[in-house]
Amino acid sequence: MSSRMSAWFVTVVLLSMHLVSSSDSDPLQDYCIPSPELSSLFPSSCKNSSLVTVDDFVFSGIKSPGDSMKTGFSSIPVGSSAFPGLNTLGMSFVRADFEPGGINVPHYHPRATEIAFVLDGTIYSGFVDSRNRVFAKVLEKGEVMVFPRGLLHFQMNVGDTTATILGSFNSQNPGLVKIPSAVFGSDIKEELLGKVFGLSWKELAKLRKKFAPTS
Amino acid sequence: MSSRMSAWFVTVVLLSMHLVSSSDSDPLQDYCIPSPELSSLFPSSCKNSSLVTVDDFVFSGIKSPGDSMKTGFSSIPVGSSAFPGLNTLGMSFVRADFEPGGINVPHYHPRATEIAFVLDGTIYSGFVDSRNRVFAKVLEKGEVMVFPRGLLHFQMNVGDTTATILGSFNSQNPGLVKIPSAVFGSDIKEELLGKVFGLSWKELAKLRKKFAPTS
Amino acid sequence: MSSRMSAWFVTVVLLSMHLVSSSDSDPLQDYCIPSPELSSLFPSSCKNSSLVTVDDFVFSGIKSPGDSMKTGFSSIPVGSSAFPGLNTLGMSFVRADFEPGGINVPHYHPRATEIAFVLDGTIYSGFVDSRNRVFAKVLEKGEVMVFPRGLLHFQMNVGDTTATILGSFNSQNPGLVKIPSAVFGSDIKEELLGKVFGLSWKELAKLRKKFAPTS
Amino acid sequence: MSSRMSAWFVTVVLLSMHLVSSSDSDPLQDYCIPSPELSSLFPSSCKNSSLVTVDDFVFSGIKSPGDSMKTGFSSIPVGSSAFPGLNTLGMSFVRADFEPGGINVPHYHPRATEIAFVLDGTIYSGFVDSRNRVFAKVLEKGEVMVFPRGLLHFQMNVGDTTATILGSFNSQNPGLVKIPSAVFGSDIKEELLGKVFGLSWKELAKLRKKFAPTS
Amino acid sequence: MSSRMSAWFVTVVLLSMHLVSSSDSDPLQDYCIPSPELSSLFPSSCKNSSLVTVDDFVFSGIKSPGDSMKTGFSSIPVGSSAFPGLNTLGMSFVRADFEPGGINVPHYHPRATEIAFVLDGTIYSGFVDSRNRVFAKVLEKGEVMVFPRGLLHFQMNVGDTTATILGSFNSQNPGLVKIPSAVFGSDIKEELLGKVFGLSWKELAKLRKKFAPTS
Amino acid sequence: MSSRMSAWFVTVVLLSMHLVSSSDSDPLQDYCIPSPELSSLFPSSCKNSSLVTVDDFVFSGIKSPGDSMKTGFSSIPVGSSAFPGLNTLGMSFVRADFEPGGINVPHYHPRATEIAFVLDGTIYSGFVDSRNRVFAKVLEKGEVMVFPRGLLHFQMNVGDTTATILGSFNSQNPGLVKIPSAVFGSDIKEELLGKVFGLSWKELAKLRKKFAPTS
Repeated sequence: MSSRMSAWFVTVVLLSMHLVSSSDSDPLQDYCIPSPELSSLFPSSCKNSSLVTVDDFVFSGIKSPGDSMKTGFSSIPVGSSAFPGLNTLGMSFVRADFEPGGINVPHYHPRATEIAFVLDGTIYSGFVDSRNRVFAKVLEKGEVMVFPRGLLHFQMNVGDTTATILGSFNSQNPGLVKIPSAVFGSDIKEELLGKVFGLSWKELAKLRKKFAPTS
Repeated sequence: MSSRMSAWFVTVVLLSMHLVSSSDSDPLQDYCIPSPELSSLFPSSCKNSSLVTVDDFVFSGIKSPGDSMKTGFSSIPVGSSAFPGLNTLGMSFVRADFEPGGINVPHYHPRATEIAFVLDGTIYSGFVDSRNRVFAKVLEKGEVMVFPRGLLHFQMNVGDTTATILGSFNSQNPGLVKIPSAVFGSDIKEELLGKVFGLSWKELAKLRKKFAPTS
Repeated sequence: MSSRMSAWFVTVVLLSMHLVSSSDSDPLQDYCIPSPELSSLFPSSCKNSSLVTVDDFVFSGIKSPGDSMKTGFSSIPVGSSAFPGLNTLGMSFVRADFEPGGINVPHYHPRATEIAFVLDGTIYSGFVDSRNRVFAKVLEKGEVMVFPRGLLHFQMNVGDTTATILGSFNSQNPGLVKIPSAVFGSDIKEELLGKVFGLSWKELAKLRKKFAPTS
Repeated sequence: MSSRMSAWFVTVVLLSMHLVSSSDSDPLQDYCIPSPELSSLFPSSCKNSSLVTVDDFVFSGIKSPGDSMKTGFSSIPVGSSAFPGLNTLGMSFVRADFEPGGINVPHYHPRATEIAFVLDGTIYSGFVDSRNRVFAKVLEKGEVMVFPRGLLHFQMNVGDTTATILGSFNSQNPGLVKIPSAVFGSDIKEELLGKVFGLSWKELAKLRKKFAPTS
Repeated sequence: MSSRMSAWFVTVVLLSMHLVSSSDSDPLQDYCIPSPELSSLFPSSCKNSSLVTVDDFVFSGIKSPGDSMKTGFSSIPVGSSAFPGLNTLGMSFVRADFEPGGINVPHYHPRATEIAFVLDGTIYSGFVDSRNRVFAKVLEKGEVMVFPRGLLHFQMNVGDTTATILGSFNSQNPGLVKIPSAVFGSDIKEELLGKVFGLSWKELAKLRKKFAPTS
Repeated sequence: MSSRMSAWFVTVVLLSMHLVSSSDSDPLQDYCIPSPELSSLFPSSCKNSSLVTVDDFVFSGIKSPGDSMKTGFSSIPVGSSAFPGLNTLGMSFVRADFEPGGINVPHYHPRATEIAFVLDGTIYSGFVDSRNRVFAKVLEKGEVMVFPRGLLHFQMNVGDTTATILGSFNSQNPGLVKIPSAVFGSDIKEELLGKVFGLSWKELAKLRKKFAPTS
């Protein structure tokens, strides 16, 4: 293999790989901080421990709310890609802020249970179990609600002031499936969706437009 | 404690407990067949092995389709409650039958990956990943598709004849969340749903009626 | 067996069993709320789901600090025994409050990683890895630190005002081993401790007295 | 390091590594399709998700039986190496075809439970538990049998027509140990085998010849 | 329910249940000692911790060899039923003694890896991987061999003196399948075994007699 | 990318990565021997199986005691880095030798339960549970004690002769935290330690000097 091919080879590798394949089982070492530059290439390797510093274990990016979206809701999800110190440790978290009336649309996390702490405000908060029963309630500041792994849940600020929630997950990458955009903003065959929801083409077109990906 | 209280106590226990709490980890014994009469009371106990027979490990209930529902679709899910031999073994399965045009509505299994085998017919089959990208295709008899754990998926018979699918899961109780009934057939606050989907009260009422639980 | 023996039998059971034996693996059902009265007897059973309400999933007991201890520190640990809705879901949490100078003594959780959010104040916070290297830093309000599973960690309020931390764990029962009381407040043979730490009998006696259990 | 050495280094890597080291725990992302060319080199990396297509999740190679072996039996095992879409998802499957009288010899899967569906024919099917008790029965088309993880099992077509079985596993690489070839076709010391089975050298030689690897 | 029925009920329970259903995942508490009298009835309960003593964590039953069997081999397997302190802790062990020429027949543990320490003597020791390759060697006192989970392994004392091995497992109930008795001493259909091994009815009858269960 | 950059790139990789990120879950293949030269670079790859030999599964390095330390105690921990054959198999072990009076200081293993076999001598051995209760006893040759995962434990030779212990762990890398050096030999803020233990600066300085790392 010539040196040229070797360089080409490395380039191909750089372009063709992306995600990390690993799992939330017990860690096999104290911690494993992926090297920022190299982790896309060698995802299951850890930084030499002499290069690890306390700042690898501290995250300062949720002091303020994220950018607000059109539903009066903003969130900052913090998993192992945003905070590499979480790698192999089986946890992650999220900060969510709600304007009055702001909504966190029905969604679920395929790979984690969530514990949600109300830091501020008054939040209608609930989940649907797999028998379609809703467990929902208005939570006050200081209250905590648990959303079992994989179940649909939702929240709405029903108070007059901004509300903030801090969520914790028992996976370093819990995943997030938002129902409206997964169902109507994805490319599922129109015929299927129309039949399933009993919607006319016109009604369906309105929903698809509303939730189409904005790129 | 009098004998009367003891009898009362057992009665209370019988009435107040229901579900099994266990988990899909490695089994600790060859197998564990719950006793049909007692498992609701003592869910983590196994039948005395001398009472176990080969019939505890064989299931004969999916030779024919289940009863067809109004969407031209029927399914027979077989988990550890229908087939106790699966208990602690980390697997379960389902038979699904589709009339022409029949639909398995968008749904997901919170606790398992599914492998779907097309036993008969021609099925449009797909899933949505957590970036809202759809992976869908028309499958022929003999083809196999995998639906990763917790992701939304759906199927529609696009052929002219009945179609049948055999699904396998890597959990003894994968769970099932059907999006239309979980979102519109449950009791989520109307105001939230209306805002989220941009639906009028009238449009929403139609959907809620369509997916309301039929008891 | 007479009815008298039966009653006696139930009594014996009630007195002789206590803890739950279960594990933080994937849940096998949506949720499993232990029945408060019966869980000590039948720990792996769940309440009949028709008896489950939203209040089983909401916890309101960490709105204010716990009772302060002599080190200027108080904590309210919330696991599956305090908040039964957490049962089988693999998570728990803690609220910790510090007076100025207050200390959370070096300790570890044998069964969980912890994510600590600084809700208020200025906290010197750190952990020791298994090569005896310390990773410590002063954290401000809104910052987050992760303590890997099983590693020694500690915190001290280095600000002028009360400080509060919210910790989350990826186990429903993380466990807590406080080094000073585990080493000096337990009943380890004096000779061993004296030799290990190079302490005189008098020095050792002082430490044992300081950390002896107060019952 | 010269460019020549770099090329040499890559070559050495290519020649010296082979298998993937990973595990059937919960996935950490929606899916992880290994890149066909690079996975032998970088086994725990995933294809860039923009290169993933629906065909990565569909398998079409079990529409017809595999090549028949001398025992009147053929099988097509499909794990994550044959069907990369299974990677990290914790499942795999197998198609097995039997001529009349054809036998699937006593074997076990060290890393998975199996669910076997009879697609066609009449099969004597059974397993041996760890107390040497046999659970066996003749299964008809449409029946299902479960073989617990790691237990010896076997099948024989006792009907007059071809029989077909579809097996599913809860591991992406269940492993397969066939007793006759593992015991007599491997290189275990003759003296040990002779003593264990009470066989003469001649009897043993016959068995060793019968099950010797054919390369 | 009368008190008579209550007594009857308890009796039925006592007779019909036997094994424990649990799993080798992370423990949820420090330890869980099953109550000797009650564990067959309430297998997932733990003794009240005030009744636990140091003797629950100490085992003294492998100071001397077990009773020798006809192959010049004896073993004392110690799992959670013999040593309740192991319950939920994910480990167990075995002492094996070999007379000169004594053999531990080819066997495997469906649920654990084993580490074997040679305490005394000279042992030919090996395993077969799932490609039928044998890894075997003569081990001396003080050497250690690892047998991967679920793979066939075997040992023979090739020295002139008694040999002793101490094995450790990473499951509280590793299981044990001895090939000769599982294949020839169980009740697998004669026709199948005859065909598989190419044995005459007479040869087969000899083997079946040799390994028939002695009750 | 020039060939020079490619070489530089490989060099950077070599210098910046060190530890393996993996986990003690079920293995996905029979075994996975890391290549000694390459494992620091590509930790989750396995040697080509044709290069694997029986010596990869045998360890001969604990026939004699390790070098004795000043406390009359020496140990040889054997995990997957010392004995690569253990990789992915979920076990490791240790040999510990004690001169009369020798002490294994209070320590814990964050990632494993330990089973300790007394090979020789008379050992005072115990652990502290998370309620600060000590379970300790003098063990004789041939006795076995279990130390639950993550709990503090300690040993002292209380006999007149050398004592030896063989410990087994259910993790390939159990970790080791020695309390005296983790608390006093690490760099935790003096003020915190002084307050916690009620020690003067002088007393603290003595302890810090005693347990300071010797490099």
